[in-house]
Amino acid sequence: MASTNGMLDADDAVILLIDHQSGLFNTVRDVPVPDLRNYVIAIAKTATLLNIPVITTASVPDGPNGPLIPEIHQHAPHAVYVPRTGQINTWDNPLFVDAIKKTGRKTLIIAGTLTSVCMAFPAVSAVREGYNVYCVVDASGNWSKLATDTTIARVTQAGAIPTDTFAIVAELMRTWNRPEGSRFAEILAEHVCPEYKCLMESYSKAQAVVKDGPETNLDKYK
Amino acid sequence: MASTNGMLDADDAVILLIDHQSGLFNTVRDVPVPDLRNYVIAIAKTATLLNIPVITTASVPDGPNGPLIPEIHQHAPHAVYVPRTGQINTWDNPLFVDAIKKTGRKTLIIAGTLTSVCMAFPAVSAVREGYNVYCVVDASGNWSKLATDTTIARVTQAGAIPTDTFAIVAELMRTWNRPEGSRFAEILAEHVCPEYKCLMESYSKAQAVVKDGPETNLDKYK
Amino acid sequence: MASTNGMLDADDAVILLIDHQSGLFNTVRDVPVPDLRNYVIAIAKTATLLNIPVITTASVPDGPNGPLIPEIHQHAPHAVYVPRTGQINTWDNPLFVDAIKKTGRKTLIIAGTLTSVCMAFPAVSAVREGYNVYCVVDASGNWSKLATDTTIARVTQAGAIPTDTFAIVAELMRTWNRPEGSRFAEILAEHVCPEYKCLMESYSKAQAVVKDGPETNLDKYK
Amino acid sequence: MASTNGMLDADDAVILLIDHQSGLFNTVRDVPVPDLRNYVIAIAKTATLLNIPVITTASVPDGPNGPLIPEIHQHAPHAVYVPRTGQINTWDNPLFVDAIKKTGRKTLIIAGTLTSVCMAFPAVSAVREGYNVYCVVDASGNWSKLATDTTIARVTQAGAIPTDTFAIVAELMRTWNRPEGSRFAEILAEHVCPEYKCLMESYSKAQAVVKDGPETNLDKYK
Amino acid sequence: MASTNGMLDADDAVILLIDHQSGLFNTVRDVPVPDLRNYVIAIAKTATLLNIPVITTASVPDGPNGPLIPEIHQHAPHAVYVPRTGQINTWDNPLFVDAIKKTGRKTLIIAGTLTSVCMAFPAVSAVREGYNVYCVVDASGNWSKLATDTTIARVTQAGAIPTDTFAIVAELMRTWNRPEGSRFAEILAEHVCPEYKCLMESYSKAQAVVKDGPETNLDKYK
Amino acid sequence: MASTNGMLDADDAVILLIDHQSGLFNTVRDVPVPDLRNYVIAIAKTATLLNIPVITTASVPDGPNGPLIPEIHQHAPHAVYVPRTGQINTWDNPLFVDAIKKTGRKTLIIAGTLTSVCMAFPAVSAVREGYNVYCVVDASGNWSKLATDTTIARVTQAGAIPTDTFAIVAELMRTWNRPEGSRFAEILAEHVCPEYKCLMESYSKAQAVVKDGPETNLDKYK
Amino acid sequence: MASTNGMLDADDAVILLIDHQSGLFNTVRDVPVPDLRNYVIAIAKTATLLNIPVITTASVPDGPNGPLIPEIHQHAPHAVYVPRTGQINTWDNPLFVDAIKKTGRKTLIIAGTLTSVCMAFPAVSAVREGYNVYCVVDASGNWSKLATDTTIARVTQAGAIPTDTFAIVAELMRTWNRPEGSRFAEILAEHVCPEYKCLMESYSKAQAVVKDGPETNLDKYK
Amino acid sequence: MASTNGMLDADDAVILLIDHQSGLFNTVRDVPVPDLRNYVIAIAKTATLLNIPVITTASVPDGPNGPLIPEIHQHAPHAVYVPRTGQINTWDNPLFVDAIKKTGRKTLIIAGTLTSVCMAFPAVSAVREGYNVYCVVDASGNWSKLATDTTIARVTQAGAIPTDTFAIVAELMRTWNRPEGSRFAEILAEHVCPEYKCLMESYSKAQAVVKDGPETNLDKYK
Repeated sequence: MASTNGMLDADDAVILLIDHQSGLFNTVRDVPVPDLRNYVIAIAKTATLLNIPVITTASVPDGPNGPLIPEIHQHAPHAVYVPRTGQINTWDNPLFVDAIKKTGRKTLIIAGTLTSVCMAFPAVSAVREGYNVYCVVDASGNWSKLATDTTIARVTQAGAIPTDTFAIVAELMRTWNRPEGSRFAEILAEHVCPEYKCLMESYSKAQAVVKDGPETNLDKYK
Repeated sequence: MASTNGMLDADDAVILLIDHQSGLFNTVRDVPVPDLRNYVIAIAKTATLLNIPVITTASVPDGPNGPLIPEIHQHAPHAVYVPRTGQINTWDNPLFVDAIKKTGRKTLIIAGTLTSVCMAFPAVSAVREGYNVYCVVDASGNWSKLATDTTIARVTQAGAIPTDTFAIVAELMRTWNRPEGSRFAEILAEHVCPEYKCLMESYSKAQAVVKDGPETNLDKYK
Repeated sequence: MASTNGMLDADDAVILLIDHQSGLFNTVRDVPVPDLRNYVIAIAKTATLLNIPVITTASVPDGPNGPLIPEIHQHAPHAVYVPRTGQINTWDNPLFVDAIKKTGRKTLIIAGTLTSVCMAFPAVSAVREGYNVYCVVDASGNWSKLATDTTIARVTQAGAIPTDTFAIVAELMRTWNRPEGSRFAEILAEHVCPEYKCLMESYSKAQAVVKDGPETNLDKYK
Repeated sequence: MASTNGMLDADDAVILLIDHQSGLFNTVRDVPVPDLRNYVIAIAKTATLLNIPVITTASVPDGPNGPLIPEIHQHAPHAVYVPRTGQINTWDNPLFVDAIKKTGRKTLIIAGTLTSVCMAFPAVSAVREGYNVYCVVDASGNWSKLATDTTIARVTQAGAIPTDTFAIVAELMRTWNRPEGSRFAEILAEHVCPEYKCLMESYSKAQAVVKDGPETNLDKYK
Repeated sequence: MASTNGMLDADDAVILLIDHQSGLFNTVRDVPVPDLRNYVIAIAKTATLLNIPVITTASVPDGPNGPLIPEIHQHAPHAVYVPRTGQINTWDNPLFVDAIKKTGRKTLIIAGTLTSVCMAFPAVSAVREGYNVYCVVDASGNWSKLATDTTIARVTQAGAIPTDTFAIVAELMRTWNRPEGSRFAEILAEHVCPEYKCLMESYSKAQAVVKDGPETNLDKYK
Repeated sequence: MASTNGMLDADDAVILLIDHQSGLFNTVRDVPVPDLRNYVIAIAKTATLLNIPVITTASVPDGPNGPLIPEIHQHAPHAVYVPRTGQINTWDNPLFVDAIKKTGRKTLIIAGTLTSVCMAFPAVSAVREGYNVYCVVDASGNWSKLATDTTIARVTQAGAIPTDTFAIVAELMRTWNRPEGSRFAEILAEHVCPEYKCLMESYSKAQAVVKDGPETNLDKYK
Repeated sequence: MASTNGMLDADDAVILLIDHQSGLFNTVRDVPVPDLRNYVIAIAKTATLLNIPVITTASVPDGPNGPLIPEIHQHAPHAVYVPRTGQINTWDNPLFVDAIKKTGRKTLIIAGTLTSVCMAFPAVSAVREGYNVYCVVDASGNWSKLATDTTIARVTQAGAIPTDTFAIVAELMRTWNRPEGSRFAEILAEHVCPEYKCLMESYSKAQAVVKDGPETNLDKYK
Repeated sequence: MASTNGMLDADDAVILLIDHQSGLFNTVRDVPVPDLRNYVIAIAKTATLLNIPVITTASVPDGPNGPLIPEIHQHAPHAVYVPRTGQINTWDNPLFVDAIKKTGRKTLIIAGTLTSVCMAFPAVSAVREGYNVYCVVDASGNWSKLATDTTIARVTQAGAIPTDTFAIVAELMRTWNRPEGSRFAEILAEHVCPEYKCLMESYSKAQAVVKDGPETNLDKYK
């Protein structure tokens, strides 16, 4: 697909958000939990903005793993939830794979808690079946940093492409020069890189000083 | 004041939020910037809930330091803003000290960006004039962790009490057994310790399973 | 008390274990959660071994904070549980303070989750009322390391003595030359410093080689 | 093997636990020693649960390296111990390789202390002879984190699959929907991710509140 | 090209400096910002010294991303700036790719802020079109260390060569035995590894002591 | 001195820069060496701006400790160098103490490499003789972070005030509303907190966009 | 003692090296074990050089704690070993306190493994009996960094002076201008700060180049 | 070479120790400098023990880079030093490559300071010419950890095998069951993993207790 210059094609993508559950979140130690929640929200909002199919699933959500975080289906109301009957690798669940197949798309963007299990296992399975797979490591959440180091090596070896939340949103939006440009800026500033919010506030203020004058007077020297 | 058991008295407290400006925030390296913003919001909301006076100020907000983050006055609409005319230690500004005196209160809760300057200087000055001073270190934000280590030692030596955002909110609320109890829980879960949000979600779900039954069926063994 | 050489007197001590609850544990980020659980167990077992009174309490255990971890009362069956009616500083609960007074002892060993709230607040209150207070920082558990740094400074400033689990167990046992010596070794090796277990295993093996001969033969050079 | 979706096949697996000795453990600096011990126990228990052959060996256990930690053979009583006569790479010991061959299996799960020697060397040798090799990095234990970073790259380059304890247990169990489901949950909560234990306790308590009522009464507002 | 021994050929190289903008710099968390600025300066100066073409570009420099840092064009006055019209992957901008083609060179040295987007995307695109690509990771700057870990794996997998500022300067200069030798030493000491400056000062002083005698006299023992 | 509100009085201050030597710098591990050099430069420039006396000294500069870094006397040409004859604590050198006495000032600002020796020793000595002492911890440089933690506790205990470079410059300048205001901004942005430089660049650019219009045109949507 | 300027007086000092045993060393996690061993050696050698009394003791050296490291008595042959009969706080052993009293000295330099027990307990006891106490934190070795943070606060609060190995050696030697000067340099370079060894080697080489000419010829440009 | 099971063959190996110079050492930040020196010594001693050819070289040793550390040729007196005439990649020096060729061996073990330059460049060149290359990352020493992360990826991608000091010594010795066994143990305990020294001391002591009886008597309970 020459036009993407080797980047992923948003029109061929399906987003798989696997086991982002409240209980599991409290076992995560490689990404701060509030950041993790925000990264998943950013991906959900991006999916909605670009009409990318989203498939969710949960591992035994009636037990201590807890419920899916509510923000996913709230911000991606088109997401399809596929219940599992115990399978750890969601690829072992034929209903889940069917849901992917129905989209007719061949590029999978996968995030899952825990990274080394819920993200890595279906990533390995999907590559094996010919899918083009992106693993969003920091939107996954793992039980230890060493396990994450190990998992980045494993999925890369298997042929999946390791990436991060900022990169996958940017790769999907492709250009700022589109009607949704400001919506993407909002997603990035609110949920991915809140340092950016400071930049926007300072920028507006600097321009307001030119347009509206300063708010304070330094008596002595001005 | 025997009734507080040595804790601060919310009815004697004034909150000073000093120089929480967008530009300065981007120089902070001891607390993640989004966390810092949330901690300040938590304090602003707590002030509103408990009718504690809030005084804000900014250092040269027309320049690169940038504007006060908007959330403070948004969540604490009763806050009073005192402009400065260049003084680094806000205690050197008579208008600021007057604003404190007007409240008639003697317990100061201080947070300021940068910690080792904007929080520490007025803390030292206020202790010297007989105030009971609390320094909220993680709602301040400093340019290096070593500078923060140094500043904790300095303000403690001077007689100010070092504390953190969770502790100051808890010290102000004093008991869960009050009408605003759930509002405080919300503040802590949204802005201070988002891991707590997961606990609340898991808690509700666990109870829903008892009340409404499980959402999934494991065919084989149930 | 000349005989203790400035150390605490186990016969004057009461142990206060405050809010070690499953939910709160999952918000702890300054001590690994499994270590924290073990440190609390070590203190409970030590209390039992030395007949030191233990008083426990919990903060809203019917809600998301979760139940007290079961190991405390399991390993310190003599512990007294004092329910709270919402007070954050357990010192605000007269029943709790009465329970301490009933013991007639004046040395308090306090651990509480979160450190900067549940450990620090009653520590400050108790010092103010003339108690000799030890704060076991690493058997407490806090929401951030920066908050712990701040809290060590705060309780030290207030006059409480900061300590750690290994030190408090050692300060209570005072000598290895007592009938319970091996029980203490077991507590330390199982729950406080598991590296020590390796030392004990290697020690036994080294001696077994002398007594029973080697288990392997290196054919070529022996 | 289509049915595993690219995951390992438990029925084809042999677990090799190499040189998990008390003395060597005290040289480990990339994984906390008590965690390492627990991870190895988790693998031993999993092996027993699934009837996977386990082969152990030790490097000069009569010397300072110390004895095998006793928990392996205790929790995997079917494990076969193969003494070595000095070889560092256990693959250089024909008896060890024979023990593997006797199982008729071709998938090796390897953990060994030190990671960069005792795990890495036989992993490289086994891949070369056509085995499907999984390296459990955090159940191995290495003398420095930099050495572990290096070793992950080395074994991945050689064609072995890097993984972690949680992932390998999950990959072996494959589904929660099996008679041993709760036994696996116990293994993970006790030995791999003790944060999970808190989730289970909080879950039970939340449901008990619905079924049995709250344990505490907040006088004023209830 | 036998003569380079597998190293890059400076005469075939183009340097692409992408989106090194003041606003974006303040979101960088994997490299200290002042170091990042210096690394970019080092590359600009090296380019000038060796007459290597430099192409710069910026992402929406009129908005909060801010202007290109001025030092690039100041120290590489021959650099060509190619404005973008919103494209995130600069390879999507035909003018930028044309600028590269015009040089007739096939080896690209890429640095870009943020690493996982502005460096990684064109690196992947360029490899795909047959270029020999070097990614200067620490002259790029990323929003999180985990994202950088992920990106190193991604670009390596894609076939780009990961490198660092010191290495790329050294690979370009190839030998100290050239007229610009001391200029390179200056670049490295001023902008890449300032510890080296201390070595040079100490070296001169040690020799001055021999030539000019000591500056101090130790009365008693000399 | 009521007018300083407990802050130091620049007119009573002497700055002591002790043993900032090239060789010793290469043993520093608690502050990045280039940062350390910049912090010392910042203090030298501040001294010149405010006409504060500076006294320097060096420990055996003819040997491996190396020469004083040249920037101190370059940026503070009024600094007085007092050679030592081997004394480790510069306070043991009567010439050094005399140089201080000659200034008639009683407030000492001390930085010295190594922190736990060259800064701490004279700080302890000076407090004992009635001086008001400030220790600039991060402009000193120590051989290990643990040694610095220890030293902060030591000098605080002794009654010296621990501080950092940003704080001491700010405490000396006292207000932005003075003729040298922009010179101080330059010192801070160039030598103390280079992140601030980005803020200034972005600020200018944001205003230029209002005044001069944007530099780029996004064809499609503008 | 005016002549020491508030520093310790070597002629009044006794060095107490407590429980530096091989087994305990392997539980140390706040200081690298080889560094710890070297720091203790440095103190032993310094004691010998200055004829400072050294008293050693060990905790149950016949058990898993292991023997005293041999280097202490090897490098301080005048050291007196006082066996203990189980006491954890060596101050509880009258023989040990008597050994101190016999020296007639009142300044104690204490290091002990573990820091929070074997160093801290006798430090607290000794201060209480009027001794001037220095705690050498990094020559002690503790089971966790958090425990060390806590212990620094504890001993400082008790009135002991926290210090580090480099500082205590420097405080004892007081001046380079003494016959043993080069011996001290050797101790520091070999055992405390081996980075210094590089400085000495580079220094000699730089001077050799002046005296003996360069060893290499760069053909082309020289 | 079936007999090595994929491991390197000591009889085919040449060790290249490149630019381990005192000045460069002081720019190293990814490995503690004293550890780095010891690792290089370990490799030199191993080479001597096994009669493996060693070739050394230095980069401009007459300048600030400083001399080769003396321990290499001291512990490997058979090492051949090849002067360079300014080439950064030592593979660009025909004399160096000739020295390798003369050995007739095809397996190169490379360590060099700085890792990302002096180790990586010749590693890439050598792989390209058909050598079997091992990169000893932690016996090299680099200017930043990020640069090392990058370099591990680069050399692995190029086909060199990343390893560490402990692993390479172990891979060369192959078995403990050889006459030099105890010499290797000494090398590892003295220079690579000094924690091992504690194991040996504790081991001897434990056996001495059996053979010679305990040294201490606990009066009361024995």
